[in-house]
Amino acid sequence: MIKQSNERPTSPVIHTGFPAEGPTLGEVGEHEVIRAIVDAAPSTFNGDDAAVLTPAVPNSRVVVTTDMLVEGRHFTSDLTTPFDVGRKAVVQNFADIEAMGARPIAAVLAFSAPPELPLDVVRQLAAGIQSKVSEYSSELVGGDVTSGPGLVLSISAVGSLGGSLPALELRRAKPGQRVVAHGRIGYSAAGLALLQSGRDIPEKLHPLAHAYQTPDVTPGRGMIARAAGATAMTDNSDGLIHDIGTVASRSNVLIDLDAAALAPDELQVAAGELLGVDPWQWVLSGGEDHTLLGTIEGSAPVGFRTIGSVRKGAGVLVGGQAPAYTGGWESFS
Amino acid sequence: MIKQSNERPTSPVIHTGFPAEGPTLGEVGEHEVIRAIVDAAPSTFNGDDAAVLTPAVPNSRVVVTTDMLVEGRHFTSDLTTPFDVGRKAVVQNFADIEAMGARPIAAVLAFSAPPELPLDVVRQLAAGIQSKVSEYSSELVGGDVTSGPGLVLSISAVGSLGGSLPALELRRAKPGQRVVAHGRIGYSAAGLALLQSGRDIPEKLHPLAHAYQTPDVTPGRGMIARAAGATAMTDNSDGLIHDIGTVASRSNVLIDLDAAALAPDELQVAAGELLGVDPWQWVLSGGEDHTLLGTIEGSAPVGFRTIGSVRKGAGVLVGGQAPAYTGGWESFS
Repeated sequence: MIKQSNERPTSPVIHTGFPAEGPTLGEVGEHEVIRAIVDAAPSTFNGDDAAVLTPAVPNSRVVVTTDMLVEGRHFTSDLTTPFDVGRKAVVQNFADIEAMGARPIAAVLAFSAPPELPLDVVRQLAAGIQSKVSEYSSELVGGDVTSGPGLVLSISAVGSLGGSLPALELRRAKPGQRVVAHGRIGYSAAGLALLQSGRDIPEKLHPLAHAYQTPDVTPGRGMIARAAGATAMTDNSDGLIHDIGTVASRSNVLIDLDAAALAPDELQVAAGELLGVDPWQWVLSGGEDHTLLGTIEGSAPVGFRTIGSVRKGAGVLVGGQAPAYTGGWESFS
Repeated sequence: MIKQSNERPTSPVIHTGFPAEGPTLGEVGEHEVIRAIVDAAPSTFNGDDAAVLTPAVPNSRVVVTTDMLVEGRHFTSDLTTPFDVGRKAVVQNFADIEAMGARPIAAVLAFSAPPELPLDVVRQLAAGIQSKVSEYSSELVGGDVTSGPGLVLSISAVGSLGGSLPALELRRAKPGQRVVAHGRIGYSAAGLALLQSGRDIPEKLHPLAHAYQTPDVTPGRGMIARAAGATAMTDNSDGLIHDIGTVASRSNVLIDLDAAALAPDELQVAAGELLGVDPWQWVLSGGEDHTLLGTIEGSAPVGFRTIGSVRKGAGVLVGGQAPAYTGGWESFS
């Protein structure tokens, strides 16, 4: 195994596929489905009509967000596992909490699935959720399960924004600031392209596939950025140019990204050559990395690198030029 | 029109059906879909990665819950309207917040729908959500929209539990207490049966159909019960015996319900005669009324009536007898 400079340990194996055997949800019934989830992701807050969390920190504000994942649209059983779907669903939501500079404290899960679904899918999904919420010292505190024609899961996250500093809003980027990022950019899209190609993925490129299956995000970076003086923040969920473009338009500023800082790395270049794709496409229009993207005066917060600057004007440039790729995730298209 | 003693004004018309004309979600695109929701249910908290609510009241605790509604499973376009689906989705969640003795303060909406869905369905859904959250002085503060094969909506609610009194938990019923209820019991199930029968529903029975489409719940009764000394509470979501049975088993008590207090009213009796159904079935095993069911020592709180008593023992009785109907909502069956 070739060691990569990745935060997450790489694995020589890319796991894909959903369990197809064993008792189904219809066979075991709702009570056992709930028990399987609670066993995998226990919380003392769970089990009543609603979850009552610990008393709020004085002067703190509650932060809330929600995201829905639909099988066939956001994930398919041949490219990932229920465990990774669970992890990714949490990351998606918690990244939105962190992008306000807040701390994720709890998640709730609602899902619908056909009665024919094996219970093991739910077990693994819940185990994935648990593995990710616990990285944030958070808990799955409640939920709702129901039958439905397809597998749909919706996670909502609650966070806490402490202290008197304002939240990191999309509209608070200011000319003169630097643009900073924590996390990979364009890794998830490269990994998805590799997995969708149906090719045997070289072990060296496994980190890309893993980044698609579960994005790497280090907990707590949003709070660090806020404490260090960042003012605006979002996460790379729909595509870098799309998401940073939202910051630019909401803040009425021009954001000029640094081409050298964004240049595809060795793995992305190799994947691009393998698939005959320009890896810049993944960097500029690939989403789902859930990388934190912020703006700050002065130096970059610990764990962040500089990827551009904020100026007077409007729109997004890369190295002073119009970006080569501007697409992004679009629902209903 | 015969005046009924209903809290909600009755209407001589039962509206059903979803809009089938006009531009679709796929035609207008995600941006316009979100705009339609935000126009119908505006909130200054909405529009960023996550919603940052107002500072928490000192010593308050955050309460969170979630519920998912699947078209074909929880509602069908021929028996209700998008407006009422939106209202019902909010009631479901807010009743769970109230059943802890807390105050609902915000909701988030995630939904998936096929691109062919008319935008007017979403507009009406959002208008229904807005009409109900505003009854609670609450707001729709965020959401996520995505395409998917079916119409699925998931609402999560955030509440605030102020003061030092404990929450109203399922496990806190005690022998010697009375069982109290606020709201109709078995109205929603009777209304569903009427609507499903395909008959022309006599105007006199419209309140039953309306109760199915949007349950009547008066905001704030959970908080009043907690302040008045209630200890346990739930809401009638899956069926009276089922839900009160959960209180009994979690609290290790016997709950004896008062047959006279629960007896089907004039409308339920008439609907039962019309359909050839024993209306007690609706009372004992029909859910979705979201009636608050609590236990308290001393007198019933304002707005509540006594429907039974808590004793030492186990299980649920009606007038000292085993209940004639014990079924309830069960997913995956």
